[in-house]
Amino acid sequence: MKQYIEANKERFFEELFSLLRIPSISSDPDHKDDMVRCAGRLAELLLAAGADRAEVCPTAGHPVVFGEKILDPSYKTVLVYGHYDVQPVDPIELWKSDPFEPEIHDGAIWGRGANDDKGQLFMHLKAFEYLLSEGLLKHNVKFIFEGEEEIGSGSLAPWAREHADLLKADVILVSDTTMISDKVPSINCGMRGLSYVEVKVTGPNKDLHSGHYGGAVANPINVLCDMISSLIDKDGRITVKGFYDEVVELSREDRDMLARAPFDMDEYKEFLDIEEVKGEKGYTTLERTGIRPCLDVNGIWGGFTGVGSKTVLPSEAHAKISMRLVPNQDSETITKLFTEHFKAIAPPYVKVEVTPCHGGDGFLIPLSSDAYKAAARAMGEVYGVEPVPSRGGGSIAILADLQRILNIDPLLMGFGLERDTIHSPNESYLLQQLFRGMESIALFYQYY
Amino acid sequence: MKQYIEANKERFFEELFSLLRIPSISSDPDHKDDMVRCAGRLAELLLAAGADRAEVCPTAGHPVVFGEKILDPSYKTVLVYGHYDVQPVDPIELWKSDPFEPEIHDGAIWGRGANDDKGQLFMHLKAFEYLLSEGLLKHNVKFIFEGEEEIGSGSLAPWAREHADLLKADVILVSDTTMISDKVPSINCGMRGLSYVEVKVTGPNKDLHSGHYGGAVANPINVLCDMISSLIDKDGRITVKGFYDEVVELSREDRDMLARAPFDMDEYKEFLDIEEVKGEKGYTTLERTGIRPCLDVNGIWGGFTGVGSKTVLPSEAHAKISMRLVPNQDSETITKLFTEHFKAIAPPYVKVEVTPCHGGDGFLIPLSSDAYKAAARAMGEVYGVEPVPSRGGGSIAILADLQRILNIDPLLMGFGLERDTIHSPNESYLLQQLFRGMESIALFYQYY
Repeated sequence: MKQYIEANKERFFEELFSLLRIPSISSDPDHKDDMVRCAGRLAELLLAAGADRAEVCPTAGHPVVFGEKILDPSYKTVLVYGHYDVQPVDPIELWKSDPFEPEIHDGAIWGRGANDDKGQLFMHLKAFEYLLSEGLLKHNVKFIFEGEEEIGSGSLAPWAREHADLLKADVILVSDTTMISDKVPSINCGMRGLSYVEVKVTGPNKDLHSGHYGGAVANPINVLCDMISSLIDKDGRITVKGFYDEVVELSREDRDMLARAPFDMDEYKEFLDIEEVKGEKGYTTLERTGIRPCLDVNGIWGGFTGVGSKTVLPSEAHAKISMRLVPNQDSETITKLFTEHFKAIAPPYVKVEVTPCHGGDGFLIPLSSDAYKAAARAMGEVYGVEPVPSRGGGSIAILADLQRILNIDPLLMGFGLERDTIHSPNESYLLQQLFRGMESIALFYQYY
Repeated sequence: MKQYIEANKERFFEELFSLLRIPSISSDPDHKDDMVRCAGRLAELLLAAGADRAEVCPTAGHPVVFGEKILDPSYKTVLVYGHYDVQPVDPIELWKSDPFEPEIHDGAIWGRGANDDKGQLFMHLKAFEYLLSEGLLKHNVKFIFEGEEEIGSGSLAPWAREHADLLKADVILVSDTTMISDKVPSINCGMRGLSYVEVKVTGPNKDLHSGHYGGAVANPINVLCDMISSLIDKDGRITVKGFYDEVVELSREDRDMLARAPFDMDEYKEFLDIEEVKGEKGYTTLERTGIRPCLDVNGIWGGFTGVGSKTVLPSEAHAKISMRLVPNQDSETITKLFTEHFKAIAPPYVKVEVTPCHGGDGFLIPLSSDAYKAAARAMGEVYGVEPVPSRGGGSIAILADLQRILNIDPLLMGFGLERDTIHSPNESYLLQQLFRGMESIALFYQYY
């Protein structure tokens, strides 16, 4: 496919950029129209690439894009999953270029969604186009692209349940993750689940002068800090009652296998500019993100946060808190346990509210499957190195749902790298990874 | 003075509203011009009330307004202090009316500064005008109004040092505090000092995806919560090393005297809509705000705080933290102790910055002075009840400085009430308190 890429590169960029220019931020109601626009553009690209049909399907939330090419009912069917929604761009002041005006320099494409997931799903469109145009395609291919991955995929599961027949396939092929490095390709064989909540702590019923009341009335920010601080103990373990009940402890063997993935602590710390890592006692860094759950405050706010100083004892304090889960933790159960725990530890001088935001379960992928083997062979050929199995720390909540609803295993061929800083300012995607991804996907179809 | 108020009420409102309409928020650089405009308007009002001279004096920060009426060098001289700057108006959405378009209803004036301190300083202008116009004034009167009280009065102390001769007087008369209630007038005999800092905790050098790094890299919000939580122990005592070294423990007698001030815990809790109060073990609520220091987080922010959910492990977390101090705690020393302590408790996986914002020392006022006695007699007559001495929990940093620089004791005749919610949305000032304040101040001059 190398030559095909070379011959069509400029058109590829134009097409991908047409997606990247649409600010499809699913979490922001102001971008509702952009979501529809982006879905429409994707359907156009699907048809242009050779799909028999491509439709923008309305849901209770943002639309789902479905497309397919049915060559022969006796062929194996590949269901490609991706998402066209992107993360917000705050803090916008840290972007070196407009997040929605993509640029190419330093060997990479820069912009929100360059990697996650517009850049990665685009590889599938182009590998499909290439195979079809060259007469190499020997599979039926279905595409499903959703617009709510970054906000919990609330609409896709019901849609998939309703259209389970339409989605019948042999494997769910997904590029929405990273590999260890471009020298060490890897295939995700498991992802973490997620429980994401927002909490609100209310003290006095109005903002107070901190001089008149300070020392006598509980400050909800201080109380929120106390409560958050108590959620993780000194060994890095989460104190929510029952939190670890369903966690599967890996065998020494499994841990040894995962430990084969190369990891350089000095490089890791240098990349992040930190002196020390921190996490659950008794586990390595890769284990802490791969096979162990965790709890992070994703946002916190309360009181006066402007320029200058205001002596206020505020009425409210807020935080967004998420927990990454591992198989077999059930996301809904964990959200319930957290809510109960957080209310139970609230001292009598504040009121507490917990609002579930989104969540999903983690999952594992069998290494013995034909699909895994085909992917490993394809990537091994393109990269010149056998890929290693790894565990992803992130969550693609919907994949566990699709696995359950459709009874098909997903396969995660992710070509992102840590350097791409997805979800952060200056997201990028290396051209080399984009092109190697296309090649690997095209080869996957040949070996599957 | 009652009749004079009745006859001139409408003009009084017009004049006061002309001050309230100017958004003189000292902490916000965008309002620099408004500060100058407000100072100019005050000088006009001083001249209109009968001052011999009134000047807007530039400083390194916002201008100082000075005015005076020298009747006879042999008379006692009263130096009136006030401030024309106001607090920010966030959260603006909680205001029921425009903070800078004052309204009168429910027996009160509503708007930012209605009480603190434009409304209260205005009482002095009008009592002065009345005494002068009726030929009752038997004192020289000087006025000094600053524009930086809400941000630490950085410019007034140097200005006062330079103009110490000009400011010579027998008492500094101030209305910038509250009384216990309109049934129980009180005179502040002491105020707390302040040390206000901003802290920043930096973890990784960029925002990270919380799935890829969560559990393995310290989250600066979680760390900031841990650090803040550790600043106050389970007995409500501040853990900063050396914090209590200079705190004067009051005698049982002094505490008993302060305990004579009426206090209704049920009313207090109902007013704030809280189930329980919280503070340092072994002290009452009035002691906790009057004679004991405290620590409050006035603002906190970090990570994603918008609508929706973003799975970010942020690079930074911030907080504004202030400590209220009691005599003899030195504000600069406490800021230094805090900074050292906060850096010392920072774990190795984050970097910490502490920026001092502003501060000032607390002070005590002798109850045996002629000025205190004159104020007590005047207020007793207006309210029909002898006022009680009380300790204010707030800080007027500059008064301790002026006391030291000019060697004059301040006297705090404050007419604010808790219900006025200064520093918060919907600040107001009861007309009854405004008018009784004017009457009390006019009588003060007659008894002093």
